[in-house]
Amino acid sequence: MDFVQEMKDKTESVNGLLERMLPSEEGFQKTVLEAMRYSVEAGGKRIRPVLMKATYDMFGGTSEIVLPFMAAMEMIHTYSLVHDDLPAMDNDMYRRGKLTTHAVYGEAMGILTGDALLNYAFETVGKAFEMCIENPDIDAKAVMKAYGILAKRAGVYGMIGGQVVDVATDADEELTREKLDFIYELKTGALLEASMEIGAVLAGADDKQLETITGVASKVGLAFQIQDDILDVTSTMEVLGKPIGSDEKNNKATYVTYEGLKKAGEDVKILSEAAIDELESLELDCSFLRELISYLIHRVN
Amino acid sequence: MDFVQEMKDKTESVNGLLERMLPSEEGFQKTVLEAMRYSVEAGGKRIRPVLMKATYDMFGGTSEIVLPFMAAMEMIHTYSLVHDDLPAMDNDMYRRGKLTTHAVYGEAMGILTGDALLNYAFETVGKAFEMCIENPDIDAKAVMKAYGILAKRAGVYGMIGGQVVDVATDADEELTREKLDFIYELKTGALLEASMEIGAVLAGADDKQLETITGVASKVGLAFQIQDDILDVTSTMEVLGKPIGSDEKNNKATYVTYEGLKKAGEDVKILSEAAIDELESLELDCSFLRELISYLIHRVN
Repeated sequence: MDFVQEMKDKTESVNGLLERMLPSEEGFQKTVLEAMRYSVEAGGKRIRPVLMKATYDMFGGTSEIVLPFMAAMEMIHTYSLVHDDLPAMDNDMYRRGKLTTHAVYGEAMGILTGDALLNYAFETVGKAFEMCIENPDIDAKAVMKAYGILAKRAGVYGMIGGQVVDVATDADEELTREKLDFIYELKTGALLEASMEIGAVLAGADDKQLETITGVASKVGLAFQIQDDILDVTSTMEVLGKPIGSDEKNNKATYVTYEGLKKAGEDVKILSEAAIDELESLELDCSFLRELISYLIHRVN
Repeated sequence: MDFVQEMKDKTESVNGLLERMLPSEEGFQKTVLEAMRYSVEAGGKRIRPVLMKATYDMFGGTSEIVLPFMAAMEMIHTYSLVHDDLPAMDNDMYRRGKLTTHAVYGEAMGILTGDALLNYAFETVGKAFEMCIENPDIDAKAVMKAYGILAKRAGVYGMIGGQVVDVATDADEELTREKLDFIYELKTGALLEASMEIGAVLAGADDKQLETITGVASKVGLAFQIQDDILDVTSTMEVLGKPIGSDEKNNKATYVTYEGLKKAGEDVKILSEAAIDELESLELDCSFLRELISYLIHRVN
């Protein structure tokens, strides 16, 4: 199968998973249940769960234990966007051409929907623990370890940590290069890394393999973010699906500001090649994952 | 030891636990780490973790496995208050006589601090799983079961569900009696119930005992909330530590509105006696827990 078709199938399969895993829209609290679904179904490339599954497959994983983690990861990513878009944060009315959650449901419900998605992500991981309780053949220790990675990388030493520094810098602090690296490592990098790590841990990767995956993932995460900065300067609104030049408009220092467009492009290439070399050093069948990484880094939107 | 002293000691012990469990305030993200600590240390009676521990003790639990759950429960309760106080929600500048989190750190940081506390609660529960990985003598199934209770009762089928209906009703829907019961059951009841259930499960209570505890806890939760409504009408600001008459001011139907002050007071008594009868039916040493329940229900602030 060619990569584009395979990617499309895998994305669809994540969409089906999310559809099944999200709560049904019944009861007095149905507004928030609808809003959760609206937020998740507003789209997205499902990169994190697809990355998780690809890593899980590469290490030979074959069970359904990865599914709750894939769904939880996308719910966490989604909640972070819902809260990012709030009036007190980036105040965005549109994302991917659709009204943002607070634009449709109001600000209070926007806050609660984000909370609900974050909490439901952890409730969804609970299904993996239920599987462990029912089936003693599942490696419960691996599930508990994967849980620890998810919780840590989503929190103050992960995504939220990066987000906090980003917000503080918008407000009144200078964005030094050191802080920029911190934001990139945590805000974007943490969940991408966690996705690959969780896939590896659940499939039974050993510590050395896990270390390699972390190295690959951190390079992919950084390259992904630099490519974002490049596209913000070089793309068009039609291709990107959101306004370009937003970093300049917001007077925001980026990797491109610090290093220039040329060096930024070269660094994406270097990081990408290093990531793929490291991945291949595992001597596993990494053909899909290799193409996925290449796609993520060289994407045009 | 008399109950007042014992309660004081247990509350202090929860404060010490939270102090140890919260992240240290270092790194670029230190603002959010400070704000998390500010929010948690702003006080509170630590009712939920004390209830959890008392139930755990009653069922003969003796290990440290309950500690991460106690801390996580209080962090979840705290995050819900931080988000409740936000301008888009209740817009409260003071709580327990102190500036609320967003009043000190700004609205964006108020949102992120709540997110961080919710996520950190689940990160903290991760310490219980780490204990399971290290020590095969710990009943990992009980820990996984307790995790499921925590995640569910904090979410859309628990606290958040109740909160959503409460907010929607403030906005433009009528508060029917059925909805009022739903809000009481979920918004206040869910975490109180979960606290007792988690204590029971971690100490190895069987299904029948767990059912009894759920029954006790739901009566305690409801009586606790009705007492809140009564105090809002009958107390003074000095005793209560917050403005009285807020329900009437916000034109908010409560149990007292529906049933009248006299019946409400009688119902608190009936619920409280039924809860204590059920608790005693377990034939365990429930002396502290019995006094705690009585204190919670008949409190004056």
